[in-house]
Amino acid sequence: MRAPINLAAAPGSREAWDRGFLWVLAWALVEPLLVRNALQLSSRARVGVLRMFGANIGEGVIARPGLRVRFPWKLEVGDRSWLGEDVWLHNQDRLVIGSDVVISQGSFITTGTHAFRTDMALRTRPIHIHDGVWITSRAVILGGLTIGQNALVLPNTVVRRDVPANAIFGAQDGAVVGQRFPDSSDETQDR
Amino acid sequence: MRAPINLAAAPGSREAWDRGFLWVLAWALVEPLLVRNALQLSSRARVGVLRMFGANIGEGVIARPGLRVRFPWKLEVGDRSWLGEDVWLHNQDRLVIGSDVVISQGSFITTGTHAFRTDMALRTRPIHIHDGVWITSRAVILGGLTIGQNALVLPNTVVRRDVPANAIFGAQDGAVVGQRFPDSSDETQDR
Amino acid sequence: MRAPINLAAAPGSREAWDRGFLWVLAWALVEPLLVRNALQLSSRARVGVLRMFGANIGEGVIARPGLRVRFPWKLEVGDRSWLGEDVWLHNQDRLVIGSDVVISQGSFITTGTHAFRTDMALRTRPIHIHDGVWITSRAVILGGLTIGQNALVLPNTVVRRDVPANAIFGAQDGAVVGQRFPDSSDETQDR
Repeated sequence: MRAPINLAAAPGSREAWDRGFLWVLAWALVEPLLVRNALQLSSRARVGVLRMFGANIGEGVIARPGLRVRFPWKLEVGDRSWLGEDVWLHNQDRLVIGSDVVISQGSFITTGTHAFRTDMALRTRPIHIHDGVWITSRAVILGGLTIGQNALVLPNTVVRRDVPANAIFGAQDGAVVGQRFPDSSDETQDR
Repeated sequence: MRAPINLAAAPGSREAWDRGFLWVLAWALVEPLLVRNALQLSSRARVGVLRMFGANIGEGVIARPGLRVRFPWKLEVGDRSWLGEDVWLHNQDRLVIGSDVVISQGSFITTGTHAFRTDMALRTRPIHIHDGVWITSRAVILGGLTIGQNALVLPNTVVRRDVPANAIFGAQDGAVVGQRFPDSSDETQDR
Repeated sequence: MRAPINLAAAPGSREAWDRGFLWVLAWALVEPLLVRNALQLSSRARVGVLRMFGANIGEGVIARPGLRVRFPWKLEVGDRSWLGEDVWLHNQDRLVIGSDVVISQGSFITTGTHAFRTDMALRTRPIHIHDGVWITSRAVILGGLTIGQNALVLPNTVVRRDVPANAIFGAQDGAVVGQRFPDSSDETQDR
């Protein structure tokens, strides 16, 4: 059995910051207080704070409570897009979201992975979500991918490859896999 | 390529409120403080607050910290049911939960969708969860569906169709899809 | 139709505590304030609090904000492991995590289930996660399982059986399942 990769020697994630320590520390405190905070109800204030920390956000964007953004200075959003409750933009790399895009409750968009066969170094790749896309609730979008114009990602789907424009993309549907009380149908026959 | 749907013209969600602005605003503040709040440990207080805002909840219901409810005035729960930690009832429409129902950690029940081929208008449909159902952790239940008596929904399953009574409903199991270190088995043979 | 199981008579979960009421109550308050809290940025303090409540944690472990631990007195972690943001260790039973293990954002590890065909009693079974494992984001690991050395669990995967050492374990990939605007290709041909 191969020995595990020593995580103490894994190349750190600090080079992904692209900002100084105090700036990143300030963001680590401001984000939970003014962006993620469920009691902060103002979308306008949320967008304003993101812009102050470097996000390039268009007009008419609606950002709901619970939104999380890793590095606003690597975030670009077009016009009129909606960022829903508990959407988690874990953008250690550049994340470009177009106009008229909807990202629904609890979806997780992450640009990062680790070099899992060598040294577990952080690897990041940008993500492009084109105009008119709807990423529904609890989807996961991985680094390096492009979601084409008007595409729709179904709930709880992991996206591991590019999604073509206009496509509806989802995982296999659930199904009945068994019976809870095997004797139940008998009982209904009153035997 | 078809132009994206203009979200600024999408019919708003306010008609789903069925209550005035100040009532909905009050709920938006009370819910994080007294229902969702992890430090609010009292199930009795949680149920009491939900009832004050219009929920119809039976006797002996246990509601855990982290519970989220969109509109308590559209929520009905029978007797002795358990609403677990971080359960998210996003009920913009009527949600009827029976008696002796368990909903486990992090499940998301949402009555809403959008008219994704026309104008992205909010569309809501009620959900009925019958007596004795167990929705396990991190499941997603979509609008318009009925979960039949005593049914069981497995973890992380998206439910997109009605579930019959007594059924165990789940998605396909995971499986081994590759090897992390391709040379690893060689090493264990000490070649 | 069989009558639902009466939840008021379901054997309670208190026997899983293995500690007195005041100890568990103290933990229920300390955990959200000093471990889960997004504004508590210190990994060292997080690990220190877990140890104070009985966790056996090695050297060089990094524990991120949002981490949740049910019972630290049933948690064992080796050296240099990383516990990511919003990782939820719902360990009502013993959870053993080895060295150089990564558990990424939002994964949920739960030792518990219910006797769903008899009385819905809480049933817990320990979980063993061996050295060098990477559980990526939003996975779910169920009670009684062993994740073998160096195994890798893909995002959003539910693990319902033991995972062999060195395996990459995942669910079926998503796919294009339809077209959003059926007439879209026509339009691009300008007919």
